[in-house]
Amino acid sequence: MAEKEKNPDLPEDDVLTMPPEGEPPHDEEEQAKEELDEGPELEVHQDKEFIQQVLSAVKENNQDQAVDLVEDLHAADIADLLEVMSSPQRVGFIELLGERLDPDVLIEVEGAAQDDLYEHMPNEQIADAVTELETDDAVYVLGELDDEDREEVLRSLAADDRVAIEESLSYPEESAGRLMSRDLVAVPQFWTVGQTIDYLRSENEDIPDDFYDIFVVDPSHKPVGTVPLSRVMRTHRPVTIGEIMDDDPTLVDVTADQEEVAYQFSKYHLISAGVVDQSQRLVGVVTVDDVVEVIGDEAQEDILALAGVSEESGVNENFLEVTKDRFTWLFVNLGTAILASVVIGLFDATIEQMVALAVLMPIVASMGGNAGTQTMTVAVRAIATKDLSSTNALRVVNRELAAAAVNGFALAVFSGLVAWIWFGNAGLGLLFAIAMLVNMVVAGLSGVLVPLGLNKAGADPAIASSVFVTTITDVVGFFAFLGLAALFLL
Amino acid sequence: MAEKEKNPDLPEDDVLTMPPEGEPPHDEEEQAKEELDEGPELEVHQDKEFIQQVLSAVKENNQDQAVDLVEDLHAADIADLLEVMSSPQRVGFIELLGERLDPDVLIEVEGAAQDDLYEHMPNEQIADAVTELETDDAVYVLGELDDEDREEVLRSLAADDRVAIEESLSYPEESAGRLMSRDLVAVPQFWTVGQTIDYLRSENEDIPDDFYDIFVVDPSHKPVGTVPLSRVMRTHRPVTIGEIMDDDPTLVDVTADQEEVAYQFSKYHLISAGVVDQSQRLVGVVTVDDVVEVIGDEAQEDILALAGVSEESGVNENFLEVTKDRFTWLFVNLGTAILASVVIGLFDATIEQMVALAVLMPIVASMGGNAGTQTMTVAVRAIATKDLSSTNALRVVNRELAAAAVNGFALAVFSGLVAWIWFGNAGLGLLFAIAMLVNMVVAGLSGVLVPLGLNKAGADPAIASSVFVTTITDVVGFFAFLGLAALFLL
Repeated sequence: MAEKEKNPDLPEDDVLTMPPEGEPPHDEEEQAKEELDEGPELEVHQDKEFIQQVLSAVKENNQDQAVDLVEDLHAADIADLLEVMSSPQRVGFIELLGERLDPDVLIEVEGAAQDDLYEHMPNEQIADAVTELETDDAVYVLGELDDEDREEVLRSLAADDRVAIEESLSYPEESAGRLMSRDLVAVPQFWTVGQTIDYLRSENEDIPDDFYDIFVVDPSHKPVGTVPLSRVMRTHRPVTIGEIMDDDPTLVDVTADQEEVAYQFSKYHLISAGVVDQSQRLVGVVTVDDVVEVIGDEAQEDILALAGVSEESGVNENFLEVTKDRFTWLFVNLGTAILASVVIGLFDATIEQMVALAVLMPIVASMGGNAGTQTMTVAVRAIATKDLSSTNALRVVNRELAAAAVNGFALAVFSGLVAWIWFGNAGLGLLFAIAMLVNMVVAGLSGVLVPLGLNKAGADPAIASSVFVTTITDVVGFFAFLGLAALFLL
Repeated sequence: MAEKEKNPDLPEDDVLTMPPEGEPPHDEEEQAKEELDEGPELEVHQDKEFIQQVLSAVKENNQDQAVDLVEDLHAADIADLLEVMSSPQRVGFIELLGERLDPDVLIEVEGAAQDDLYEHMPNEQIADAVTELETDDAVYVLGELDDEDREEVLRSLAADDRVAIEESLSYPEESAGRLMSRDLVAVPQFWTVGQTIDYLRSENEDIPDDFYDIFVVDPSHKPVGTVPLSRVMRTHRPVTIGEIMDDDPTLVDVTADQEEVAYQFSKYHLISAGVVDQSQRLVGVVTVDDVVEVIGDEAQEDILALAGVSEESGVNENFLEVTKDRFTWLFVNLGTAILASVVIGLFDATIEQMVALAVLMPIVASMGGNAGTQTMTVAVRAIATKDLSSTNALRVVNRELAAAAVNGFALAVFSGLVAWIWFGNAGLGLLFAIAMLVNMVVAGLSGVLVPLGLNKAGADPAIASSVFVTTITDVVGFFAFLGLAALFLL
């Protein structure tokens, strides 16, 4: 802040958290934003000048200089820095900083940078870091280690920490149990606000640094309510917690999928939610900052899945991961493409007699593919956000059919005319138009039914839908157009 | 909760916030989740039985019954309910409940349901609702009204409310100024914890219901630090706020784009952030619950944009919106498809002599399209999450090229053999393989360069990228394959 307040009216200054280094007037990456956004200053990991300084410190093996450069940075910025470095660069950086690297970087870093960091940081150092972290972060770090390292790190932890972390690790990945922190504030409902505040002021180790709700529990430690911290603050000491608590708190089952937890948080605008085990006892708390990441991740997964890639394909992953990750999908699509070509092959005689068919047929297929993708994407997301279910499926299908028919008709007429003029053959134009209309209606229909069907069948619609939809639109497109031509044109 | 604790071990019971009505054992929409997730109970708007009861209450014009059914529901659930109803149904519901409809529904409802609600709720009622809402929500509601209604509602508000809301409305849409709430707690740094708590306990109207950080301001109301509420709670009364505050708070400029705000929140795990005007004075606070929505929305926008649709195409939008929204993109794609066909047309003589070319050419184009889409999607998202910028662009491009070359080669060899066997023509197989390799490398390259270029040019990569990429891969695919054939096969 300090240096910022000296020049409070920099035009490009949207967000005042800043890299310690100079900030060029514009980050080209931000120019894409609407006019309203004058573009924030450069992120550290986008500041070539700054990165150069760090790298030269590494080259000169100058630990103090490297520490000076990064010590004021948030762990998330250091992580971004690692991610834009090449593998050798970041290994050098990690080894140079050693013990003096912020433990929180272990939680923030992703992709190949994460692999390098976890690999090159000695297990003792990871163990030290783990003890400094909040339980949920510690669990995350251990979850990322390979079994051998995990064992070694766990052994070197204090007994109680180890037990707590091992129990958390026993919950399935991507479950609330992995997401939750075990440090929370729970009080009986007969306590007064005064007692509660005095308890919080005590040097009790179990009290977390940051918390937003106080949980009210019965003698068997089952939650009976919650009180937002601000309400406790605003209430006079003699009032009992029971009087001011919300007695219908949103609780999350420890085995709940993180996507479901995220859904509840964003729908009900939660800041934190208690986590209960099968016997309804309060075992932890999930806070919104963890959920924010989940929301980002889940949406990201869907975007990538629809394009046939996974997190393994990210820009921060290494060449091998990326290549492997892409191959499967491409191979599957090769199969479907060949299938579509087999359909064309059925009509090779027809094409031989009228080569115009070969010229026009990709248009029919591609228009169906685009229409299908539009509907499918909307449907996949609507299923993910619970906006599309059996309650409104019928109405949505009808609406998609209607939209496909209207757009299909308009575009079919237009393309029919184009084909007629292009090849001076009215009949060809007519069949072309009919084939396109048919294919676009089929596309609209399959765009909703395929995701709904996959979902009902227990598959993730985001992953499998587009293969099916594009195959359908290709096959139907070629078959309708070439078939009609074979029947009526020759 | 009450009724829940009677049956604490329902297997399908993940999240215990529940509809008041019976919960069928399984929500087919949840079965798609990993095994670990036993699937939460049905959401209200997915509970056909419950919806039927509501609709019959509407039919019988029985307000009390309708109110009984929904009064225990969270506004977000009532909004979901409206969204799954048909337009006439929801209008009936809105008119039946009248004054007794939870004002918060105005903020929660989306799509066509929102249009119906805002249209059929009398302006006086909207005005009453607005006065009950937090400032940021009130601003949102007025932002959604058409100018005429907005004027009328504003006129009927108390002067101070009106001024505050009008000022917020003066900030650009999707800016921090629209997102922020003006109700916050700001204290001078010489205050003690005791003074602060006493102030909070006072009946001061400006103190918001929920807050998570206390802002420390100087006499000119410029923020000099923040203190998380939990820290105030844990500190003894005589300690001054200045001693326990964080003196480097993340601040957001009032004109900052909401996407940038969301980026900061998720990167730095913020719960709330102060908003400052051009003169660095504290004018409001953005809280994470608003940002959670933004994060969801921004990711959603990208997913839809990549498929050529907008929010206007959602399942809750009406037929007309959807049809219009899809048409543009389809029309653009018709143009690019015709362009690709023109390329094919250049080689009609070649195809006439060897119809196998017509059979195989769509495979080359489609493989390029898929490879391009994979790379493009990764690049578009990486740009949005600031993981891809000029700092690492070169490395990413090289890596994509390498991955495309390796996968391209493997798949080209395989498809070449298939073509050879299929048509018993080794030369054809060879050219087919070469064309595919070429097209997939071009796809990998354009998959990164197109989004980067569009971004640099100030366009939103998510919206425009796929048109360009698929056009490139279609044209290159057809041209390479047919061109090589024309040169070497005939």
